[in-house]
Amino acid sequence: MVDVDEGKARPRFDRVATEEPLEIRLRAGGATLQLSVTMRTPGNDFELAAGFLHGEGIIGGYDDLRGISFCVDRDVDAEQRYNIVNVDLAASALPETNAVERRFGTTSACGVCGKASLEALSLRGLAPVASDTRVDAAIVAGLPARLLAAQGVFEKTGGLHAAGLFDACGDLVIVREDVGRHNAVDKVVGWALLQRALPLDGRILMVSGRTSYEIVQKALVARVPIVCAVSAPSSLAVDLARRFGITLVGFLRGAHFNVYAGEQRIALA
Amino acid sequence: MVDVDEGKARPRFDRVATEEPLEIRLRAGGATLQLSVTMRTPGNDFELAAGFLHGEGIIGGYDDLRGISFCVDRDVDAEQRYNIVNVDLAASALPETNAVERRFGTTSACGVCGKASLEALSLRGLAPVASDTRVDAAIVAGLPARLLAAQGVFEKTGGLHAAGLFDACGDLVIVREDVGRHNAVDKVVGWALLQRALPLDGRILMVSGRTSYEIVQKALVARVPIVCAVSAPSSLAVDLARRFGITLVGFLRGAHFNVYAGEQRIALA
Repeated sequence: MVDVDEGKARPRFDRVATEEPLEIRLRAGGATLQLSVTMRTPGNDFELAAGFLHGEGIIGGYDDLRGISFCVDRDVDAEQRYNIVNVDLAASALPETNAVERRFGTTSACGVCGKASLEALSLRGLAPVASDTRVDAAIVAGLPARLLAAQGVFEKTGGLHAAGLFDACGDLVIVREDVGRHNAVDKVVGWALLQRALPLDGRILMVSGRTSYEIVQKALVARVPIVCAVSAPSSLAVDLARRFGITLVGFLRGAHFNVYAGEQRIALA
Repeated sequence: MVDVDEGKARPRFDRVATEEPLEIRLRAGGATLQLSVTMRTPGNDFELAAGFLHGEGIIGGYDDLRGISFCVDRDVDAEQRYNIVNVDLAASALPETNAVERRFGTTSACGVCGKASLEALSLRGLAPVASDTRVDAAIVAGLPARLLAAQGVFEKTGGLHAAGLFDACGDLVIVREDVGRHNAVDKVVGWALLQRALPLDGRILMVSGRTSYEIVQKALVARVPIVCAVSAPSSLAVDLARRFGITLVGFLRGAHFNVYAGEQRIALA
């Protein structure tokens, strides 16, 4: 790596965030289904797989799992084995393909629009989050600094996305990082699932970047009442939060932030 | 939306970046194939579809297209029609499923790893970018300001990702924005494809966020010799750039930046 400053170059060693593909394989009743490959930062891969499958509605909780393991096929290079995770389901058969293809947003109907995406979640039987959790605005204001403090120096400067789970007092429960924002959230939810700590009522999910529809969807399925982000939400993220009773905070960079939905959960001074 | 500042709230109107799903349908020889749905910011959707298909190797250029149109099915709601793009191929049949499924990174082989991902690109017949384009470090340093200047006020503050194409003098050729980084790049490449301006030798691609493997892959297929980003690259983005002769600049925020690959194309003071 070359460091250029005012037109002068000097060689420098540098770390970059590791990105490797992860393939998730679902196994049940002797059958195997290869799910899509996700680019991710290696580490906490079982959590990532569990959280991903939970967000997609393929597993509902810890008891739907028989086990999670890395690939041990003899004909796979050793280094590649850690890029394949086998998830053994407690069910006697693989889920319907539809449930799996939902990952890709594919709908059998012709119509796709934001409204249809929200309907699809309703059809999955997801009720609004009715939590009466309330958090002081001052605690919300302190979350970015606490999330940053939980990251390493490299991660802060090197551009890994972070997702942190906090309790209503603003104390950190767990932090996970990844090159992909969605993956960091999957790792947090997967951690909770493997700890049998779902649903996440009374918790706050704080992400380092922006909030898209998918981030709020993952929070909804895990029943997180409050989602905070350093940057902006998308329109569909706001729609989803409003429709399903999630408190959505954006542009959270200290004492000044925006509340896009569910402001009743933020206690003002 | 409620604006909270030092514990005091006041209602405020706010714009958020629009996010809506887009479905791409490939049509050839009377057959139709529904491709995955991507969340994107509406606008320049034909460019997005063309750029996406180009990056995946499904179309090689303008002449592979017969036409691009929005869905006109009578039984689709009017608002949803603009979320479905039909791409009519010049070919007499749809491409092999494998080529399409590459989008999802699915490989038929058991092995998946960064190395395998790079091999897959070699197998697609992609040669390294041999361009002798050289750009002054001072021009590189000026790109972030030029990209920002090309964005609207809302886009700068509201968190839309931008991808800009510049010539070797640092003059802006085109800028495109999206809630998704990859989509912004697809729109730029799709614009070039529809303008018959591919390959993009002598151009610089500048993105507002981080560079992942996928961003560099899209640049490689479009033959862009220099890729610059405001934030960090991933390890696989660096590997890909080095292997395929692409100049990769990161942490570009003015006169100080890092060059992770292909530094011979940056002319120092």
